[in-house]
Amino acid sequence: MDAMMMNAMSEDMMSMEGMPAMDMAIMQACMDACAACEQACTVCSAQMMDCAPACMNCADMCNTMMRSMMRMQGMTPASMMAMLDACIAMCQTCMDMCMMHADDSVVCKMCADSCQACMDACMAMKDAMSMA
Amino acid sequence: MDAMMMNAMSEDMMSMEGMPAMDMAIMQACMDACAACEQACTVCSAQMMDCAPACMNCADMCNTMMRSMMRMQGMTPASMMAMLDACIAMCQTCMDMCMMHADDSVVCKMCADSCQACMDACMAMKDAMSMA
Amino acid sequence: MDAMMMNAMSEDMMSMEGMPAMDMAIMQACMDACAACEQACTVCSAQMMDCAPACMNCADMCNTMMRSMMRMQGMTPASMMAMLDACIAMCQTCMDMCMMHADDSVVCKMCADSCQACMDACMAMKDAMSMA
Amino acid sequence: MDAMMMNAMSEDMMSMEGMPAMDMAIMQACMDACAACEQACTVCSAQMMDCAPACMNCADMCNTMMRSMMRMQGMTPASMMAMLDACIAMCQTCMDMCMMHADDSVVCKMCADSCQACMDACMAMKDAMSMA
Repeated sequence: MDAMMMNAMSEDMMSMEGMPAMDMAIMQACMDACAACEQACTVCSAQMMDCAPACMNCADMCNTMMRSMMRMQGMTPASMMAMLDACIAMCQTCMDMCMMHADDSVVCKMCADSCQACMDACMAMKDAMSMA
Repeated sequence: MDAMMMNAMSEDMMSMEGMPAMDMAIMQACMDACAACEQACTVCSAQMMDCAPACMNCADMCNTMMRSMMRMQGMTPASMMAMLDACIAMCQTCMDMCMMHADDSVVCKMCADSCQACMDACMAMKDAMSMA
Repeated sequence: MDAMMMNAMSEDMMSMEGMPAMDMAIMQACMDACAACEQACTVCSAQMMDCAPACMNCADMCNTMMRSMMRMQGMTPASMMAMLDACIAMCQTCMDMCMMHADDSVVCKMCADSCQACMDACMAMKDAMSMA
Repeated sequence: MDAMMMNAMSEDMMSMEGMPAMDMAIMQACMDACAACEQACTVCSAQMMDCAPACMNCADMCNTMMRSMMRMQGMTPASMMAMLDACIAMCQTCMDMCMMHADDSVVCKMCADSCQACMDACMAMKDAMSMA
Protein backbone atom coordinates (compact mmCIF):
# COMPACT_ATOMS: atom_id res chain seq x y z
CA MET A 1 0.00 0.00 0.00
CA ASP A 2 1.40 3.32 -1.13
CA ALA A 3 2.13 5.67 1.83
CA MET A 4 0.45 8.75 0.30
CA MET A 5 -2.66 6.74 -0.51
CA MET A 6 -2.64 5.36 3.04
CA ASN A 7 -2.64 8.91 4.44
CA ALA A 8 -5.60 9.91 2.28
CA MET A 9 -7.46 6.76 3.33
CA SER A 10 -6.84 7.22 7.02
CA GLU A 11 -8.24 10.77 6.90
CA ASP A 12 -11.46 9.37 5.46
CA MET A 13 -11.60 6.71 8.18
CA MET A 14 -11.09 9.15 11.04
CA SER A 15 -14.37 10.80 10.11
CA MET A 16 -16.45 7.57 10.24
CA GLU A 17 -18.63 7.37 13.30
CA GLY A 18 -18.63 4.09 15.22
CA MET A 19 -15.32 3.00 13.71
CA PRO A 20 -12.64 2.46 16.39
CA ALA A 21 -9.66 4.82 16.12
CA MET A 22 -7.07 2.20 15.28
CA ASP A 23 -3.34 2.30 14.80
CA MET A 24 -3.24 2.75 11.02
CA ALA A 25 0.20 1.12 10.75
CA ILE A 26 -1.37 -2.17 11.86
CA MET A 27 -4.07 -1.84 9.22
CA GLN A 28 -1.52 -1.02 6.52
CA ALA A 29 0.51 -4.09 7.51
CA CYS A 30 -2.64 -6.21 7.30
CA MET A 31 -3.50 -4.95 3.79
CA ASP A 32 0.07 -5.64 2.65
CA ALA A 33 0.03 -9.16 4.15
CA CYS A 34 -3.28 -9.90 2.40
CA ALA A 35 -1.90 -8.68 -0.94
CA ALA A 36 1.26 -10.78 -0.55
CA CYS A 37 -0.79 -13.83 0.44
CA GLU A 38 -3.13 -13.44 -2.56
CA GLN A 39 -0.09 -13.38 -4.85
CA ALA A 40 1.65 -16.37 -3.27
CA CYS A 41 -1.59 -18.40 -3.32
CA THR A 42 -2.24 -17.48 -6.97
CA VAL A 43 1.21 -18.67 -8.06
CA CYS A 44 0.91 -21.80 -5.89
CA SER A 45 -2.54 -22.66 -7.31
CA ALA A 46 -1.09 -22.78 -10.83
CA GLN A 47 1.22 -25.63 -9.84
CA MET A 48 -1.77 -27.99 -9.76
CA MET A 49 -0.68 -29.83 -6.64
CA ASP A 50 -3.19 -31.06 -4.03
CA CYS A 51 -3.28 -27.68 -2.35
CA ALA A 52 -4.52 -25.81 -5.46
CA PRO A 53 -8.24 -25.49 -4.56
CA ALA A 54 -7.36 -24.26 -1.05
CA CYS A 55 -4.90 -21.77 -2.57
CA MET A 56 -7.55 -20.42 -4.95
CA ASN A 57 -10.04 -20.02 -2.10
CA CYS A 58 -7.39 -18.32 0.02
CA ALA A 59 -6.35 -15.95 -2.81
CA ASP A 60 -9.96 -14.82 -3.24
CA MET A 61 -10.54 -14.39 0.51
CA CYS A 62 -7.32 -12.39 0.94
CA ASN A 63 -8.23 -10.11 -1.96
CA THR A 64 -11.72 -9.57 -0.51
CA MET A 65 -10.20 -8.83 2.92
CA MET A 66 -7.69 -6.35 1.47
CA ARG A 67 -10.33 -4.53 -0.55
CA SER A 68 -12.68 -4.32 2.45
CA MET A 69 -9.99 -2.54 4.44
CA MET A 70 -9.62 -0.11 1.54
CA ARG A 71 -13.37 0.54 1.67
CA MET A 72 -13.96 0.87 5.41
CA GLN A 73 -16.86 3.22 4.69
CA GLY A 74 -18.80 0.03 3.94
CA MET A 75 -17.75 -1.94 7.03
CA THR A 76 -18.93 -2.14 10.62
CA PRO A 77 -16.84 -3.43 13.53
CA ALA A 78 -18.98 -6.61 13.49
CA SER A 79 -18.52 -7.31 9.77
CA MET A 80 -14.78 -6.54 10.05
CA MET A 81 -14.39 -9.06 12.88
CA ALA A 82 -16.26 -11.78 10.96
CA MET A 83 -14.25 -11.14 7.79
CA LEU A 84 -10.95 -11.26 9.71
CA ASP A 85 -12.00 -14.57 11.29
CA ALA A 86 -12.84 -15.97 7.85
CA CYS A 87 -9.51 -14.81 6.44
CA ILE A 88 -7.64 -16.40 9.35
CA ALA A 89 -9.56 -19.69 8.93
CA MET A 90 -8.98 -19.77 5.17
CA CYS A 91 -5.24 -19.05 5.58
CA GLN A 92 -5.04 -21.86 8.16
CA THR A 93 -6.66 -24.34 5.76
CA CYS A 94 -4.40 -23.30 2.89
CA MET A 95 -1.27 -23.39 5.05
CA ASP A 96 -2.11 -26.87 6.36
CA MET A 97 -2.55 -28.20 2.82
CA CYS A 98 0.62 -26.53 1.51
CA MET A 99 2.71 -27.76 4.43
CA MET A 100 1.95 -31.36 3.41
CA HIS A 101 4.36 -30.99 0.49
CA ALA A 102 6.47 -28.03 1.55
CA ASP A 103 9.54 -30.28 1.29
CA ASP A 104 8.80 -31.10 -2.35
CA SER A 105 7.90 -27.61 -3.55
CA VAL A 106 9.55 -24.34 -2.63
CA VAL A 107 6.45 -22.51 -3.91
CA CYS A 108 4.24 -24.39 -1.42
CA LYS A 109 6.69 -23.48 1.37
CA MET A 110 6.56 -19.80 0.39
CA CYS A 111 2.76 -19.94 0.14
CA ALA A 112 2.48 -21.48 3.62
CA ASP A 113 4.77 -18.75 5.00
CA SER A 114 2.59 -16.06 3.39
CA CYS A 115 -0.50 -17.63 4.95
CA GLN A 116 1.14 -17.58 8.40
CA ALA A 117 2.12 -13.92 7.96
CA CYS A 118 -1.40 -13.04 6.84
CA MET A 119 -2.95 -14.84 9.83
CA ASP A 120 -0.60 -12.97 12.19
CA ALA A 121 -1.48 -9.62 10.59
CA CYS A 122 -5.23 -10.34 10.79
CA MET A 123 -4.91 -11.30 14.47
CA ALA A 124 -3.00 -8.07 15.17
CA MET A 125 -5.80 -6.19 13.41
CA LYS A 126 -8.43 -7.89 15.58
CA ASP A 127 -6.46 -6.97 18.72
CA ALA A 128 -6.11 -3.36 17.55
CA MET A 129 -9.85 -3.11 16.94
CA SER A 130 -10.72 -4.69 20.31
CA MET A 131 -8.44 -2.30 22.20
CA ALA A 132 -9.58 0.82 20.35
CA MET B 1 -25.67 -23.24 -11.08
CA ASP B 2 -26.19 -25.55 -14.01
CA ALA B 3 -27.79 -28.89 -12.94
CA MET B 4 -25.38 -31.11 -14.88
CA MET B 5 -22.38 -29.26 -13.44
CA MET B 6 -23.90 -29.60 -9.97
CA ASN B 7 -24.13 -33.37 -10.38
CA ALA B 8 -20.49 -33.59 -11.44
CA MET B 9 -19.47 -31.41 -8.50
CA SER B 10 -21.43 -33.39 -5.93
CA GLU B 11 -19.76 -36.65 -7.07
CA ASP B 12 -16.38 -35.06 -6.38
CA MET B 13 -17.56 -33.87 -2.95
CA MET B 14 -18.90 -37.27 -1.88
CA SER B 15 -15.38 -38.64 -2.08
CA MET B 16 -13.81 -36.02 0.22
CA GLU B 17 -13.02 -37.37 3.65
CA GLY B 18 -14.05 -35.28 6.63
CA MET B 19 -16.63 -33.35 4.62
CA PRO B 20 -20.17 -33.79 6.00
CA ALA B 21 -22.58 -35.51 3.58
CA MET B 22 -24.87 -32.55 3.05
CA ASP B 23 -28.09 -32.10 1.18
CA MET B 24 -26.69 -30.83 -2.11
CA ALA B 25 -29.88 -28.92 -2.94
CA ILE B 26 -29.18 -26.61 0.01
CA MET B 27 -25.65 -26.02 -1.24
CA GLN B 28 -26.88 -25.33 -4.77
CA ALA B 29 -29.41 -22.81 -3.41
CA CYS B 30 -26.63 -21.13 -1.44
CA MET B 31 -24.36 -20.78 -4.49
CA ASP B 32 -27.27 -19.35 -6.50
CA ALA B 33 -28.14 -16.86 -3.72
CA CYS B 34 -24.49 -15.74 -3.53
CA ALA B 35 -24.36 -15.23 -7.31
CA ALA B 36 -27.61 -13.23 -7.29
CA CYS B 37 -26.40 -11.13 -4.36
CA GLU B 38 -23.05 -10.38 -6.06
CA GLN B 39 -24.96 -9.14 -9.12
CA ALA B 40 -27.45 -7.00 -7.19
CA CYS B 41 -24.65 -5.47 -5.10
CA THR B 42 -22.56 -4.75 -8.20
CA VAL B 43 -25.42 -2.88 -9.90
CA CYS B 44 -26.26 -1.08 -6.65
CA SER B 45 -22.63 -0.01 -6.09
CA ALA B 46 -22.62 1.79 -9.46
CA GLN B 47 -25.40 4.12 -8.29
CA MET B 48 -22.92 5.91 -6.03
CA MET B 49 -25.28 6.28 -3.11
CA ASP B 50 -24.08 6.02 0.53
CA CYS B 51 -24.34 2.23 0.42
CA ALA B 52 -21.82 1.81 -2.44
CA PRO B 53 -18.73 0.80 -0.42
CA ALA B 54 -20.77 -1.77 1.54
CA CYS B 55 -22.21 -3.10 -1.73
CA MET B 56 -18.72 -3.50 -3.23
CA ASN B 57 -17.52 -5.35 -0.13
CA CYS B 58 -20.60 -7.55 -0.18
CA ALA B 59 -20.24 -8.33 -3.92
CA ASP B 60 -16.65 -9.48 -3.38
CA MET B 61 -17.52 -11.57 -0.30
CA CYS B 62 -20.48 -13.26 -2.06
CA ASN B 63 -18.29 -14.09 -5.07
CA THR B 64 -15.61 -15.54 -2.79
CA MET B 65 -18.25 -17.57 -0.92
CA MET B 66 -19.77 -18.92 -4.15
CA ARG B 67 -16.39 -19.90 -5.57
CA SER B 68 -15.37 -21.63 -2.32
CA MET B 69 -18.45 -23.84 -2.53
CA MET B 70 -17.44 -24.70 -6.10
CA ARG B 71 -13.98 -25.70 -4.84
CA MET B 72 -14.86 -27.68 -1.71
CA GLN B 73 -11.68 -29.74 -2.21
CA GLY B 74 -9.94 -26.73 -0.68
CA MET B 75 -12.25 -26.24 2.30
CA THR B 76 -12.57 -27.76 5.76
CA PRO B 77 -15.73 -27.69 7.88
CA ALA B 78 -14.05 -25.03 10.07
CA SER B 79 -13.12 -22.72 7.18
CA MET B 80 -16.58 -23.17 5.63
CA MET B 81 -18.26 -22.13 8.90
CA ALA B 82 -16.06 -19.03 9.26
CA MET B 83 -16.62 -18.02 5.62
CA LEU B 84 -20.40 -18.46 5.96
CA ASP B 85 -20.37 -16.29 9.11
CA ALA B 86 -18.40 -13.60 7.26
CA CYS B 87 -20.79 -13.69 4.31
CA ILE B 88 -23.79 -13.39 6.65
CA ALA B 89 -22.18 -10.45 8.50
CA MET B 90 -21.26 -8.67 5.26
CA CYS B 91 -24.78 -9.14 3.83
CA GLN B 92 -26.23 -7.76 7.08
CA THR B 93 -24.05 -4.63 6.86
CA CYS B 94 -24.93 -4.09 3.20
CA MET B 95 -28.64 -4.66 3.78
CA ASP B 96 -28.69 -2.21 6.70
CA MET B 97 -27.05 0.49 4.57
CA CYS B 98 -29.30 -0.12 1.54
CA MET B 99 -32.47 -0.11 3.66
CA MET B 100 -31.70 3.48 4.71
CA HIS B 101 -32.76 4.66 1.24
CA ALA B 102 -34.83 1.75 -0.01
CA ASP B 103 -37.76 4.13 -0.42
CA ASP B 104 -35.75 6.40 -2.72
CA SER B 105 -34.14 3.75 -4.89
CA VAL B 106 -35.69 0.56 -6.22
CA VAL B 107 -32.17 -0.79 -6.87
CA CYS B 108 -31.30 -0.42 -3.16
CA LYS B 109 -34.53 -2.23 -2.25
CA MET B 110 -33.67 -5.10 -4.61
CA CYS B 111 -30.11 -5.21 -3.29
CA ALA B 112 -31.35 -5.40 0.32
CA ASP B 113 -33.72 -8.23 -0.64
CA SER B 114 -30.85 -10.14 -2.29
CA CYS B 115 -28.76 -9.70 0.86
CA GLN B 116 -31.58 -11.10 3.00
CA ALA B 117 -31.98 -14.09 0.66
CA CYS B 118 -28.22 -14.72 0.72
CA MET B 119 -28.13 -14.56 4.53
CA ASP B 120 -31.01 -17.06 4.71
CA ALA B 121 -29.28 -19.42 2.29
CA CYS B 122 -25.99 -19.21 4.21
CA MET B 123 -27.77 -19.94 7.49
CA ALA B 124 -29.51 -22.95 5.91
CA MET B 125 -26.08 -24.12 4.73
CA LYS B 126 -24.67 -23.81 8.27
CA ASP B 127 -27.60 -25.82 9.63
CA ALA B 128 -27.13 -28.50 6.97
CA MET B 129 -23.43 -28.80 7.81
CA SER B 130 -24.09 -28.95 11.56
CA MET B 131 -26.67 -31.70 11.18
CA ALA B 132 -24.63 -33.80 8.74
CA MET C 1 -29.56 -11.44 -14.26
CA ASP C 2 -32.82 -10.67 -12.52
CA ALA C 3 -35.37 -9.03 -14.88
CA MET C 4 -36.38 -6.24 -12.49
CA MET C 5 -32.73 -5.37 -11.85
CA MET C 6 -32.11 -5.41 -15.60
CA ASN C 7 -34.90 -2.87 -16.13
CA ALA C 8 -33.47 -0.55 -13.49
CA MET C 9 -30.00 -0.89 -15.04
CA SER C 10 -31.16 -0.17 -18.56
CA GLU C 11 -32.85 3.04 -17.47
CA ASP C 12 -29.53 4.23 -16.06
CA MET C 13 -27.75 3.30 -19.29
CA MET C 14 -30.20 5.13 -21.55
CA SER C 15 -29.17 8.37 -19.92
CA MET C 16 -25.42 7.94 -20.57
CA GLU C 17 -24.15 10.15 -23.35
CA GLY C 18 -21.93 8.54 -25.97
CA MET C 19 -23.14 5.04 -25.13
CA PRO C 20 -24.79 3.35 -28.13
CA ALA C 21 -28.48 2.55 -27.64
CA MET C 22 -28.15 -1.23 -27.70
CA ASP C 23 -30.64 -4.02 -27.63
CA MET C 24 -30.63 -4.71 -23.88
CA ALA C 25 -31.66 -8.36 -24.37
CA ILE C 26 -28.30 -8.99 -26.04
CA MET C 27 -26.50 -7.39 -23.13
CA GLN C 28 -28.50 -9.41 -20.60
CA ALA C 29 -27.65 -12.62 -22.50
CA CYS C 30 -23.97 -11.65 -22.44
CA MET C 31 -23.95 -11.05 -18.66
CA ASP C 32 -25.68 -14.40 -18.12
CA ALA C 33 -23.20 -16.21 -20.39
CA CYS C 34 -20.27 -14.62 -18.52
CA ALA C 35 -21.74 -15.68 -15.16
CA ALA C 36 -22.29 -19.26 -16.36
CA CYS C 37 -18.78 -19.42 -17.82
CA GLU C 38 -17.21 -18.13 -14.57
CA GLN C 39 -19.02 -20.89 -12.68
CA ALA C 40 -18.10 -23.69 -15.11
CA CYS C 41 -14.47 -22.56 -15.18
CA THR C 42 -14.32 -22.37 -11.38
CA VAL C 43 -15.60 -25.93 -10.97
CA CYS C 44 -13.30 -27.16 -13.77
CA SER C 45 -10.25 -25.46 -12.23
CA ALA C 46 -10.74 -27.45 -9.01
CA GLN C 47 -10.25 -30.74 -10.89
CA MET C 48 -6.54 -29.95 -11.21
CA MET C 49 -6.21 -31.19 -14.78
CA ASP C 50 -3.91 -29.46 -17.32
CA CYS C 51 -6.56 -26.88 -18.14
CA ALA C 52 -6.79 -25.53 -14.54
CA PRO C 53 -4.66 -22.35 -14.93
CA ALA C 54 -6.54 -21.40 -18.13
CA CYS C 55 -9.85 -22.04 -16.34
CA MET C 56 -8.85 -19.77 -13.43
CA ASN C 57 -7.81 -17.01 -15.83
CA CYS C 58 -11.05 -17.41 -17.76
CA ALA C 59 -13.19 -17.37 -14.58
CA ASP C 60 -11.59 -14.08 -13.51
CA MET C 61 -11.94 -12.50 -16.96
CA CYS C 62 -15.61 -13.54 -17.27
CA ASN C 63 -16.38 -12.11 -13.82
CA THR C 64 -14.63 -8.84 -14.72
CA MET C 65 -16.55 -8.70 -18.02
CA MET C 66 -19.90 -9.34 -16.30
CA ARG C 67 -19.29 -6.72 -13.64
CA SER C 68 -18.22 -4.15 -16.22
CA MET C 69 -21.54 -4.55 -18.03
CA MET C 70 -23.27 -3.98 -14.67
CA ARG C 71 -21.28 -0.76 -14.25
CA MET C 72 -21.55 0.75 -17.73
CA GLN C 73 -21.29 4.22 -16.16
CA GLY C 74 -17.58 3.47 -15.99
CA MET C 75 -17.13 2.20 -19.54
CA THR C 76 -16.60 3.81 -22.94
CA PRO C 77 -17.34 2.13 -26.29
CA ALA C 78 -13.56 1.73 -26.76
CA SER C 79 -12.93 0.05 -23.39
CA MET C 80 -16.00 -2.18 -23.88
CA MET C 81 -14.69 -3.37 -27.26
CA ALA C 82 -11.22 -4.13 -25.84
CA MET C 83 -12.68 -5.99 -22.84
CA LEU C 84 -14.98 -8.05 -25.08
CA ASP C 85 -12.00 -8.98 -27.28
CA ALA C 86 -10.03 -10.04 -24.19
CA CYS C 87 -12.94 -12.12 -22.91
CA ILE C 88 -13.30 -13.83 -26.31
CA ALA C 89 -9.55 -14.55 -26.46
CA MET C 90 -9.47 -15.93 -22.92
CA CYS C 91 -12.53 -18.16 -23.53
CA GLN C 92 -10.86 -19.46 -26.72
CA THR C 93 -7.68 -20.36 -24.81
CA CYS C 94 -9.64 -22.08 -22.04
CA MET C 95 -11.87 -23.95 -24.49
CA ASP C 96 -8.86 -25.19 -26.48
CA MET C 97 -7.21 -26.53 -23.31
CA CYS C 98 -10.41 -28.15 -21.99
CA MET C 99 -11.18 -29.79 -25.35
CA MET C 100 -7.90 -31.70 -25.14
CA HIS C 101 -9.45 -33.94 -22.50
CA ALA C 102 -13.15 -33.42 -23.04
CA ASP C 103 -13.49 -37.17 -23.65
CA ASP C 104 -11.99 -37.99 -20.25
CA SER C 105 -13.86 -35.44 -18.15
CA VAL C 106 -17.48 -34.40 -18.44
CA VAL C 107 -16.65 -31.25 -16.44
CA CYS C 108 -14.07 -30.19 -19.06
CA LYS C 109 -16.64 -30.79 -21.81
CA MET C 110 -19.19 -28.61 -19.97
CA CYS C 111 -16.56 -25.94 -19.35
CA ALA C 112 -15.61 -25.87 -23.05
CA ASP C 113 -19.29 -25.54 -24.00
CA SER C 114 -19.69 -22.61 -21.57
CA CYS C 115 -16.64 -20.93 -23.10
CA GLN C 116 -18.12 -21.30 -26.60
CA ALA C 117 -21.45 -19.86 -25.42
CA CYS C 118 -19.66 -16.95 -23.75
CA MET C 119 -17.62 -16.22 -26.90
CA ASP C 120 -20.81 -16.23 -28.99
CA ALA C 121 -22.56 -13.86 -26.56
CA CYS C 122 -19.57 -11.48 -26.51
CA MET C 123 -19.46 -11.45 -30.31
CA ALA C 124 -23.19 -10.68 -30.45
CA MET C 125 -22.56 -7.85 -28.01
CA LYS C 126 -19.79 -6.44 -30.24
CA ASP C 127 -22.11 -6.59 -33.25
CA ALA C 128 -24.90 -4.86 -31.32
CA MET C 129 -22.56 -2.08 -30.26
CA SER C 130 -21.16 -1.61 -33.78
CA MET C 131 -24.62 -1.36 -35.29
CA ALA C 132 -26.01 1.02 -32.67
CA MET D 1 5.90 -9.51 -6.23
CA ASP D 2 8.29 -11.27 -3.92
CA ALA D 3 11.69 -11.93 -5.57
CA MET D 4 11.96 -15.58 -4.48
CA MET D 5 8.45 -16.30 -5.74
CA MET D 6 9.32 -14.55 -9.02
CA ASN D 7 12.31 -16.85 -9.48
CA ALA D 8 10.19 -19.95 -8.90
CA MET D 9 7.57 -18.64 -11.35
CA SER D 10 10.06 -17.83 -14.07
CA GLU D 11 11.51 -21.36 -13.94
CA ASP D 12 8.01 -22.73 -14.60
CA MET D 13 7.55 -20.31 -17.51
CA MET D 14 10.84 -21.17 -19.18
CA SER D 15 9.56 -24.71 -19.69
CA MET D 16 6.32 -23.69 -21.47
CA GLU D 17 6.45 -24.31 -25.19
CA GLY D 18 5.26 -21.51 -27.48
CA MET D 19 5.74 -18.87 -24.80
CA PRO D 20 8.26 -16.20 -25.84
CA ALA D 21 11.39 -16.04 -23.65
CA MET D 22 10.76 -12.61 -22.18
CA ASP D 23 12.75 -10.37 -19.93
CA MET D 24 11.22 -11.41 -16.59
CA ALA D 25 12.01 -8.03 -14.99
CA ILE D 26 9.51 -6.42 -17.37
CA MET D 27 6.87 -8.95 -16.40
CA GLN D 28 7.55 -8.44 -12.69
CA ALA D 29 7.21 -4.66 -13.15
CA CYS D 30 3.90 -5.20 -14.95
CA MET D 31 2.49 -7.39 -12.16
CA ASP D 32 3.56 -4.80 -9.57
CA ALA D 33 1.98 -1.96 -11.58
CA CYS D 34 -1.28 -3.92 -11.87
CA ALA D 35 -1.33 -4.59 -8.12
CA ALA D 36 -0.68 -0.91 -7.31
CA CYS D 37 -3.37 0.19 -9.78
CA GLU D 38 -5.94 -2.24 -8.32
CA GLN D 39 -5.27 -0.77 -4.87
CA ALA D 40 -5.43 2.89 -5.95
CA CYS D 41 -8.64 2.25 -7.92
CA THR D 42 -10.23 0.42 -4.97
CA VAL D 43 -9.54 3.32 -2.59
CA CYS D 44 -10.68 5.84 -5.20
CA SER D 45 -13.93 3.95 -5.89
CA ALA D 46 -14.91 4.27 -2.21
CA GLN D 47 -14.94 8.07 -2.49
CA MET D 48 -18.15 7.88 -4.52
CA MET D 49 -17.18 10.56 -7.00
CA ASP D 50 -18.15 10.34 -10.70
CA CYS D 51 -15.17 8.15 -11.48
CA ALA D 52 -16.22 5.35 -9.08
CA PRO D 53 -17.72 2.87 -11.59
CA ALA D 54 -14.67 3.25 -13.88
CA CYS D 55 -12.38 2.72 -10.87
CA MET D 56 -14.22 -0.47 -9.90
CA ASN D 57 -13.99 -1.80 -13.46
CA CYS D 58 -10.30 -0.90 -13.60
CA ALA D 59 -9.56 -2.53 -10.21
CA ASP D 60 -11.12 -5.79 -11.40
CA MET D 61 -9.33 -5.73 -14.77
CA CYS D 62 -5.95 -5.00 -13.14
CA ASN D 63 -6.44 -7.86 -10.67
CA THR D 64 -7.38 -10.23 -13.52
CA MET D 65 -4.33 -9.09 -15.52
CA MET D 66 -1.98 -9.57 -12.55
CA ARG D 67 -3.33 -13.03 -11.77
CA SER D 68 -3.07 -14.10 -15.42
CA MET D 69 0.63 -13.24 -15.42
CA MET D 70 0.98 -15.38 -12.28
CA ARG D 71 -0.69 -18.28 -14.12
CA MET D 72 1.02 -18.13 -17.51
CA GLN D 73 0.52 -21.89 -17.85
CA GLY D 74 -3.04 -20.94 -18.81
CA MET D 75 -2.20 -18.22 -21.31
CA THR D 76 -1.22 -18.11 -24.99
CA PRO D 77 0.58 -15.20 -26.68
CA ALA D 78 -2.75 -14.29 -28.34
CA SER D 79 -4.77 -14.21 -25.11
CA MET D 80 -1.97 -12.29 -23.34
CA MET D 81 -1.99 -9.61 -26.06
CA ALA D 82 -5.78 -9.23 -25.92
CA MET D 83 -5.76 -9.03 -22.11
CA LEU D 84 -2.99 -6.43 -22.13
CA ASP D 85 -4.96 -4.34 -24.66
CA ALA D 86 -8.07 -4.56 -22.45
CA CYS D 87 -6.09 -3.55 -19.37
CA ILE D 88 -4.60 -0.56 -21.24
CA ALA D 89 -8.05 0.51 -22.50
CA MET D 90 -9.62 0.17 -19.04
CA CYS D 91 -6.79 2.16 -17.39
CA GLN D 92 -7.21 4.88 -20.05
CA THR D 93 -10.95 5.15 -19.33
CA CYS D 94 -10.38 5.27 -15.57
CA MET D 95 -7.56 7.82 -15.88
CA ASP D 96 -9.66 10.09 -18.10
CA MET D 97 -12.52 10.06 -15.58
CA CYS D 98 -10.26 10.62 -12.56
CA MET D 99 -8.40 13.48 -14.27
CA MET D 100 -11.69 15.41 -14.53
CA HIS D 101 -11.49 16.13 -10.79
CA ALA D 102 -7.83 15.55 -10.03
CA ASP D 103 -7.63 19.13 -8.76
CA ASP D 104 -10.39 18.51 -6.22
CA SER D 105 -9.25 15.13 -4.91
CA VAL D 106 -5.72 13.98 -4.21
CA VAL D 107 -6.97 10.37 -4.28
CA CYS D 108 -8.22 10.81 -7.88
CA LYS D 109 -4.84 12.30 -8.84
CA MET D 110 -3.02 9.31 -7.32
CA CYS D 111 -5.44 6.90 -9.01
CA ALA D 112 -4.86 8.55 -12.41
CA ASP D 113 -1.08 8.32 -11.90
CA SER D 114 -1.39 4.61 -11.07
CA CYS D 115 -3.44 4.07 -14.23
CA GLN D 116 -0.75 5.79 -16.33
CA ALA D 117 1.98 3.68 -14.73
CA CYS D 118 -0.04 0.50 -15.34
CA MET D 119 -0.63 1.42 -19.00
CA ASP D 120 3.11 2.05 -19.46
CA ALA D 121 3.99 -1.29 -17.86
CA CYS D 122 1.45 -3.16 -20.02
CA MET D 123 2.81 -1.51 -23.17
CA ALA D 124 6.37 -2.48 -22.17
CA MET D 125 5.11 -6.04 -21.68
CA LYS D 126 3.55 -6.06 -25.17
CA ASP D 127 6.84 -4.81 -26.66
CA ALA D 128 8.81 -7.46 -24.77
CA MET D 129 6.50 -10.21 -26.04
CA SER D 130 6.64 -8.93 -29.62
CA MET D 131 10.43 -8.80 -29.63
CA ALA D 132 10.93 -12.21 -28.03
